[in-house]
Amino acid sequence: MTFERVWVDGIEGSSVSAFDRGLQYGDGVFETLTCIDGQPRFLERHLQRLERGRARLGLGGAPTATLRRELEQAAAGAARAILKLVLTRGPALARGYQTQGNEAGTRLLLRYEWPAEPPERAEHGVAVRLGTLRFAENPALGGLKHLNRLEQILARREWSDAEHFESLHLAGSGCLASGTMTNLFLVLGERLVTPSVERCGVAGIMRERVLECAREHGIASHVGPIPAECLDAADELFLTNVRIGVVPVTRLPTRRLAPGALTRRLQQWLTDAR
Amino acid sequence: MTFERVWVDGIEGSSVSAFDRGLQYGDGVFETLTCIDGQPRFLERHLQRLERGRARLGLGGAPTATLRRELEQAAAGAARAILKLVLTRGPALARGYQTQGNEAGTRLLLRYEWPAEPPERAEHGVAVRLGTLRFAENPALGGLKHLNRLEQILARREWSDAEHFESLHLAGSGCLASGTMTNLFLVLGERLVTPSVERCGVAGIMRERVLECAREHGIASHVGPIPAECLDAADELFLTNVRIGVVPVTRLPTRRLAPGALTRRLQQWLTDAR
Repeated sequence: MTFERVWVDGIEGSSVSAFDRGLQYGDGVFETLTCIDGQPRFLERHLQRLERGRARLGLGGAPTATLRRELEQAAAGAARAILKLVLTRGPALARGYQTQGNEAGTRLLLRYEWPAEPPERAEHGVAVRLGTLRFAENPALGGLKHLNRLEQILARREWSDAEHFESLHLAGSGCLASGTMTNLFLVLGERLVTPSVERCGVAGIMRERVLECAREHGIASHVGPIPAECLDAADELFLTNVRIGVVPVTRLPTRRLAPGALTRRLQQWLTDAR
Repeated sequence: MTFERVWVDGIEGSSVSAFDRGLQYGDGVFETLTCIDGQPRFLERHLQRLERGRARLGLGGAPTATLRRELEQAAAGAARAILKLVLTRGPALARGYQTQGNEAGTRLLLRYEWPAEPPERAEHGVAVRLGTLRFAENPALGGLKHLNRLEQILARREWSDAEHFESLHLAGSGCLASGTMTNLFLVLGERLVTPSVERCGVAGIMRERVLECAREHGIASHVGPIPAECLDAADELFLTNVRIGVVPVTRLPTRRLAPGALTRRLQQWLTDAR
């Protein structure tokens, strides 16, 4: 595998306790960061999202200052790298779901090579499937980048061809949710539209940047439940995450689209954004 | 903690790879078995459920015969013990949700002391809360005893007093789902009723035994969506899992109940059931 280094609780290592609640229950949160020229991009945003996630799950563990320092150290010297930071509730202090409140937490930091992104992806766009699995809705977990990722795994198992970059999924309600690893945006007329993550999906950092960027440039946007039919009505479609940035969807099973003008403007505004 | 021994892939140990997909994504299933007089109870049922779970998630790993042998060996010599067997997809072969199909799988076997169950629990019954968190519904995961347990953890974090043994939760649809660690049964008139686990909840081994036992004794039962209002209408209520067996609910926030006649008969029929 294309990883370079692993740190467990700040020390170079490669294993965690068999009792870790991350392993036993998926009891934790994570962040995937991109690093350019030795710097983690959107570092403060990632740290803020981690803090929101920890607060919602009642996770303890290392202070933010420690996480910031370790992320900066891990990024230093790498021209381009991907960092994954996993924070769990730590080794279980007793059997069962109950938390004790004094769990130590475990932090796992992985540094990977950044796979070469095909430049034509952002330029020419990607083909996208419509997945059959619907992502469950739960306001208690909505928006969180937590470690319970079986739905995404099952969704990703629906296809294996290299032709499709991603699949789009509905939420249980029948509204649009997201891709398996990306947030989805639609352009409907003059308006930028993206599914709410209050009940389902991850509050992506690049999604947040796109919405801010739209506000800054006076572009109307709408976040809410988006009917599936809007996929066919959309003038533009694009996917986001911090690794791929903004990538136009140019092929759906039902139609083809050209990369749109607003998609291009957002790509330009967000290039090299920190 | 009250554990005695741990085996990782059949070898005594206490850690797993930081890349394990069980840790990264909760990508796996588990079983909790009780052992009496050196024997795992309901062993074949647990193994069958594991196989169904592995098939649904596309997990590989050790053959069932290996799991059976290791569970039997771990139980041998223990008068009373709890075994927890965790099967994950194993260490990730690449970054991201995609599975490769040739992951080795990891099996983690933990043996714990069986905590002394207060005998008055089965005799006198327990007090139960009504939780506020609703368990999300997804047919892709319904019934599975998988490693994505954040909902149960958050549900269990709703209370910490020792007075309440369990909390009952609705599914997203508003129908009854289950406790955080137990299945729920109601007796309505002559009929035994329990929520379907097709969209939400775990297909418990003791739940299965209760339903079989009812069939064997000519007791009508119904498995399906159960409106929350039935809690107030129920003549009897009880909880099940393999550790506690059949435990009457004698107190809800809204009412008190006596342990019922059918509950008592099921307790008797299922005593020491293998």
